[in-house]
Amino acid sequence: MDALYQGVSLGLLTDMYQLTMAQGYWKLNRHNEDAVFHLYFRKTPFHGSYVMSAGLDTALEYLEHWSISASDCDYLRSLKSHGTDLFDKGFIEYLASMKMDVTLHAVPEGEMVFPNEPLLRVEGPLLQCQLLETPLLTILGFQSLVATKASRVVGAASVGKVLDFGLRRAQGPDGGVSMSRAAHIGGCAATSNVLAGKLFDIPCQGTHAHAWVMSFEDEQEAFDNYAETSANNSILLVDTYDTIEGVRRAIETGKKLKEMGHDLAGIRLDSGDLARLSIEARRMLLAAGFPDAKIVASDDLDEYRIDELISRGAEIDVWGVGTRIATCYDQPALGCVYKLAAIENGKGLRYTMKSAGANPAKASIPGVLGVRRYRNADGKMVHDVIHDIACLDNLPAGGEDLLVKVWTKSKRCYPHQPLSELRAKGIASLLSLPQQYRKLKDGGAYPVALEKSLEERRNAMAESLKGE
Amino acid sequence: MDALYQGVSLGLLTDMYQLTMAQGYWKLNRHNEDAVFHLYFRKTPFHGSYVMSAGLDTALEYLEHWSISASDCDYLRSLKSHGTDLFDKGFIEYLASMKMDVTLHAVPEGEMVFPNEPLLRVEGPLLQCQLLETPLLTILGFQSLVATKASRVVGAASVGKVLDFGLRRAQGPDGGVSMSRAAHIGGCAATSNVLAGKLFDIPCQGTHAHAWVMSFEDEQEAFDNYAETSANNSILLVDTYDTIEGVRRAIETGKKLKEMGHDLAGIRLDSGDLARLSIEARRMLLAAGFPDAKIVASDDLDEYRIDELISRGAEIDVWGVGTRIATCYDQPALGCVYKLAAIENGKGLRYTMKSAGANPAKASIPGVLGVRRYRNADGKMVHDVIHDIACLDNLPAGGEDLLVKVWTKSKRCYPHQPLSELRAKGIASLLSLPQQYRKLKDGGAYPVALEKSLEERRNAMAESLKGE
Repeated sequence: MDALYQGVSLGLLTDMYQLTMAQGYWKLNRHNEDAVFHLYFRKTPFHGSYVMSAGLDTALEYLEHWSISASDCDYLRSLKSHGTDLFDKGFIEYLASMKMDVTLHAVPEGEMVFPNEPLLRVEGPLLQCQLLETPLLTILGFQSLVATKASRVVGAASVGKVLDFGLRRAQGPDGGVSMSRAAHIGGCAATSNVLAGKLFDIPCQGTHAHAWVMSFEDEQEAFDNYAETSANNSILLVDTYDTIEGVRRAIETGKKLKEMGHDLAGIRLDSGDLARLSIEARRMLLAAGFPDAKIVASDDLDEYRIDELISRGAEIDVWGVGTRIATCYDQPALGCVYKLAAIENGKGLRYTMKSAGANPAKASIPGVLGVRRYRNADGKMVHDVIHDIACLDNLPAGGEDLLVKVWTKSKRCYPHQPLSELRAKGIASLLSLPQQYRKLKDGGAYPVALEKSLEERRNAMAESLKGE
Repeated sequence: MDALYQGVSLGLLTDMYQLTMAQGYWKLNRHNEDAVFHLYFRKTPFHGSYVMSAGLDTALEYLEHWSISASDCDYLRSLKSHGTDLFDKGFIEYLASMKMDVTLHAVPEGEMVFPNEPLLRVEGPLLQCQLLETPLLTILGFQSLVATKASRVVGAASVGKVLDFGLRRAQGPDGGVSMSRAAHIGGCAATSNVLAGKLFDIPCQGTHAHAWVMSFEDEQEAFDNYAETSANNSILLVDTYDTIEGVRRAIETGKKLKEMGHDLAGIRLDSGDLARLSIEARRMLLAAGFPDAKIVASDDLDEYRIDELISRGAEIDVWGVGTRIATCYDQPALGCVYKLAAIENGKGLRYTMKSAGANPAKASIPGVLGVRRYRNADGKMVHDVIHDIACLDNLPAGGEDLLVKVWTKSKRCYPHQPLSELRAKGIASLLSLPQQYRKLKDGGAYPVALEKSLEERRNAMAESLKGE
């Protein structure tokens, strides 16, 4: 984000109601009351059993660049409600002079996280916590969703490599850049997105388009010329006219490349029955003496199609996945929420809870929450416990805290990590999850318990809210 | 985009294969051959009959800012393939010195467009047309999809107002800003997204969150204080604990506001049976003497739920729609394509076509395409004809050209229009479409013909490609 938004103030990247509530707190002199919010989701997406956390570094960059500029102030001053100023001048000045003095604890990127576990615990002045709701939901919710989807696709591809081809289907320039970042954390090996490659040091990869072939009078000429101009980097797209004929011509080109001392890098299939075509293409490539040529496949792939193709014996080495990762096609929103869980208003800490009436599954958890994660001797994840950080007595021994401190006293206190490390973490996380919870669907819920006293508090508050 | 990306070079916002193909054209000295590409979609989304064009102004801003900066050059020079430089130094210098000298004809924003009609015709140097494929698909595909979705929601809401509440579900900061822009073109009356409000002069609107209520000891106190600090702007969220009890308390607050000479602006329902609750809330508001209080509803709304709620007599004045517009939930990608349709290689203009083998519906149309739109005397749309711009003889009289010239000689030649005008255009377009094609589903295909000689060319080329 740093590079994309240099010099642009993003303080207004929030919902209008955050600003009107902020003004309300300010007018009531409540803006500095100590609040605790949690950002979490209630249900795992895609019928799977996990979410992979992503977006934290982007969120921290957002906070580092947070400001209300002079032109933001002009804009806020220009807003009217029924003919009178919507915002008080004093309030606008207050915003403009403010520093983001919250404390954040977060789940590191590439880590597994489950329903009701805070991805983020935000503590600090009520007004500031409130303003941050929208951008934090936007950044973490989307990137975590993409990393999760990518991780599922990468899991399905098994030993095959997955390439992110999704830029053209993303929500505008930064939608695409954020997506490519998260897809890499989720395990994609490379991206087609050159800007994301530059910004995050992601390996870039690609083949060529149908347009290359169509720009020549015939396909053979197109392949020969592509090979000649790109030498060892030639992956030839073979389905512009007739796929099997295309493979035959790619092999012809491969022979010419050999004579020049180069290799045919491979072919790409982009339509038709990819299992049948890849098996036939492999047979042809082997018969012609190209055992190392890779077969790349694309065409609306997702984890289910990859799984099915592999089960049908498809001879595919590399999977180019675009739309389905970039848009998280079958569930394009994670539905994260951001709930007030406690507030210190001078009369002591008060826990808060949204009761959610008829739907107890939507009730929030009151307290200042942490998560303990327990692993077995092999490092495999076994279970988690959500607890209040003030109450560690009932926790089993041997767990590790899932959330780490990442921001305090208006500064980040958590290092920026190269994306390659976050990707390695993401892959390790997936492998440390018992096989059952890696299933594409029907894996069941990973065991997450509520610590006993926290559960009692939640039940007691739910009971008393019924009486409200 | 202007404001979001000041000072940032977006020339690398493209797929790697565009750059490797570009280098190929350059090495073959074909980079300046005159090419013609069309950007179009093959199928209307959401089971509907139309797409509303959006994103053009953003695309033109992208072109105005297009550049390959010194740091982009450094990055390209750093890339290796099998140990050797991926890009030739001369090629990188060529890119850095290049101006976007293409000519674009586009469907104006807010206009209706149908399968196989070019949203954009791109003519110019082959290399440049190729590089632009990815960013144009990203910008126009996504914004057109959102405008279409918003237009459907606005159509379903009929006399009710639709608010865009989707920022928190978007693909990062610019995903949200692009989305709010397109949703306004599609007819949303206001947005919660303050940054989009500032950048595009979209009216901003909001209520308050559950957190406001939970931050007080009880709901009545929360409502009274919100009303006191926001006067005439008070829309009270009533479902934090018990909805009907919440309405009762909102009315209590309304009475206090009246005493202070203000009005209760309204209430918001965010869960439960919105039809039943809104009918009961209206009854209570009317009985208490608040006939002008608006009832706002939110909670995963989309065109189908709004349609159903209205048919059940829901008393809802304003619909807050977030996730379902922001992510285009039921079809998060329009699936635009960008196909080479003709090329001038010194031996005359040669038409090109992707034959798509077994699937003739995916075959592209060879030629330099325009669209004539025909209306009846009332201005209602009747039918369109796709034709080659070199052949106007067979066209019926009285039509208008759908595409207009927007970019030529490295400059935009189409004015920037205020977003409010584009929104008015979007609403007018929807109303000029016969009722049948505005149906949420099963409206059938709007009549689009291929001009006779163009159809003959397409059929003849398809036939000859079969022989390939």
